[in-house]
Amino acid sequence: MLSPGITRALSSTVYAILLNMPVYMGIDIGGTNMRAALYEGDDQSPNKYNKLPTHLDESTPFDQLVRLIESVWPVEGTLDAIGIASPGPLNPYTGVIYMAPNIHGWQDFPLVDLLTDKFNVPIFLDNDANLAGYAEWKFGAGRGHNHMIYMTISTGVGGGVIINGELLHGTVGIAAELGHVTVLPDGPMCGCGQKGHLEAVAAGPAIARYVRAEIARGESSILADLSEFTTKEIAEAARNGDKLAKKAFDRAGLFIGRKLADYLHIFNPSAVVIGGGVSNAGSLILDPIQSAIKQYAFSTHYYEDLVISAAQLGDEAGLLGAYALARERCG
Amino acid sequence: MLSPGITRALSSTVYAILLNMPVYMGIDIGGTNMRAALYEGDDQSPNKYNKLPTHLDESTPFDQLVRLIESVWPVEGTLDAIGIASPGPLNPYTGVIYMAPNIHGWQDFPLVDLLTDKFNVPIFLDNDANLAGYAEWKFGAGRGHNHMIYMTISTGVGGGVIINGELLHGTVGIAAELGHVTVLPDGPMCGCGQKGHLEAVAAGPAIARYVRAEIARGESSILADLSEFTTKEIAEAARNGDKLAKKAFDRAGLFIGRKLADYLHIFNPSAVVIGGGVSNAGSLILDPIQSAIKQYAFSTHYYEDLVISAAQLGDEAGLLGAYALARERCG
Repeated sequence: MLSPGITRALSSTVYAILLNMPVYMGIDIGGTNMRAALYEGDDQSPNKYNKLPTHLDESTPFDQLVRLIESVWPVEGTLDAIGIASPGPLNPYTGVIYMAPNIHGWQDFPLVDLLTDKFNVPIFLDNDANLAGYAEWKFGAGRGHNHMIYMTISTGVGGGVIINGELLHGTVGIAAELGHVTVLPDGPMCGCGQKGHLEAVAAGPAIARYVRAEIARGESSILADLSEFTTKEIAEAARNGDKLAKKAFDRAGLFIGRKLADYLHIFNPSAVVIGGGVSNAGSLILDPIQSAIKQYAFSTHYYEDLVISAAQLGDEAGLLGAYALARERCG
Repeated sequence: MLSPGITRALSSTVYAILLNMPVYMGIDIGGTNMRAALYEGDDQSPNKYNKLPTHLDESTPFDQLVRLIESVWPVEGTLDAIGIASPGPLNPYTGVIYMAPNIHGWQDFPLVDLLTDKFNVPIFLDNDANLAGYAEWKFGAGRGHNHMIYMTISTGVGGGVIINGELLHGTVGIAAELGHVTVLPDGPMCGCGQKGHLEAVAAGPAIARYVRAEIARGESSILADLSEFTTKEIAEAARNGDKLAKKAFDRAGLFIGRKLADYLHIFNPSAVVIGGGVSNAGSLILDPIQSAIKQYAFSTHYYEDLVISAAQLGDEAGLLGAYALARERCG
């Protein structure tokens, strides 16, 4: 056993080596930035962290990712595994990204093979929404629930589902796309090319689009003077008594909650965790979600012991999920 | 080793005892009849079988069930386990039936406890659609698929989902209700009390209701002369060139197929198996289902290797699933 004085004198990485503690890297890739962090053993606070833009002149996103990984690589000792959260659809079994719409050139892109050639450590890949859900289940609002639905509502609607303590993946790993289900046949176009999906009707851009359309139809709103507004500004307007802004959240919450009632019938979870930027609107969006769930679930058995809550890990969820994935597979 | 002559001379049950083969009872409870069968080891052909009406004057359904079990109980040797397929919602972990709408008095009914007191063997209970799906996966159209969706379309729409080789149950076992999801907000009333569910829009009675409504609106059909008709008769009319009858199946197939596209996004299975009475209409219902799936899945990755097929076990699925459950838990 080392004395406390000596322990303090050592860098945490050296300490980890002396204790023979495994070291994991978590990576969260987004369309704008990619972030990486280094974790020791079970400690969820990273001891090294970096962020780089995903697209930079003359660099490919893959070059940027290599640079990012090198920048947080442990100076002493070895790295046990890397976990990566990426937009998808992707195949976590083969490590191939089928398509990452906001990342140039990543179509049928064998990310894990390319990185393994370069770094020669075990590398695990999964969908960012899956891993955010996994992190909420391991460390956040879903702890202790063996059956959990995570839904993230921001510019899109994504999902991660825990069944019997395992992430739902399906046959090639593209399951749990909870935002890509029809809620309004012949409704507005979705980013995926289909019509009337939950994402097209209730994600952040759809909420703003609804407000704009109602203003154009003559509804009054304190937002009418702004040429553009975000979900955050709509939430602020609603809190200041703007009826249209409030109505926009009620409408989105109804669509989301009615779909979540379907998901209760499908998955019968004990917890539903709502994350993503739109969930920052708090009770403005969570209250109508909650009442729609109760209204549309066909038996009280689906919700009498159900816990519905906001996500707890915020923007860190993807990164922590990537770390948890690496730790789980190599722990 | 026994000589073939001696073997033939023994009843199959005695033979099973001599070989120390486990014996299982499968039971399938319906609103009209309940059936039980005795199986030896891995043999899917029962060596004893009986059927009784569920409701009989002066007898409760539970009395009938006890009588049924006694009637197929092995004369020699012991029974290793009983598996029961019952309408639900029900809790397979506790053996309590929350509600079986067509069985008098079965509300919060502790079926497994009551039967265990009586017969003192291991008894396992599950939802009939779950077990029909389980049987199709073990013995029928879903064999070899680790991720499978079974949908049964008859007077209702039910589901059974295999994820990583396990039935999806959820926290109290009432998951996989694939017919109780909203496909037409404010659509027709569903038997469960909600509106616009897939079951209310595309099950057998909904198909017949659509034909009747269109006839009332003035559409011509060879069915117009009949005061009542079944899905089977509508299928026959369609095969004889009746346009309205064909349209009714196309419409139901569209709703079912579009919802199955959602289920591909949710579960990413490698097989979809369609069972229940309506599936006997064959290509009349399967073709529009298949084309809606391809039209509404948002990426080819969801269906390029997907096998869509009709169920293979017919009315035996529930019974075989109950047997498989008993064998699995006690094997």
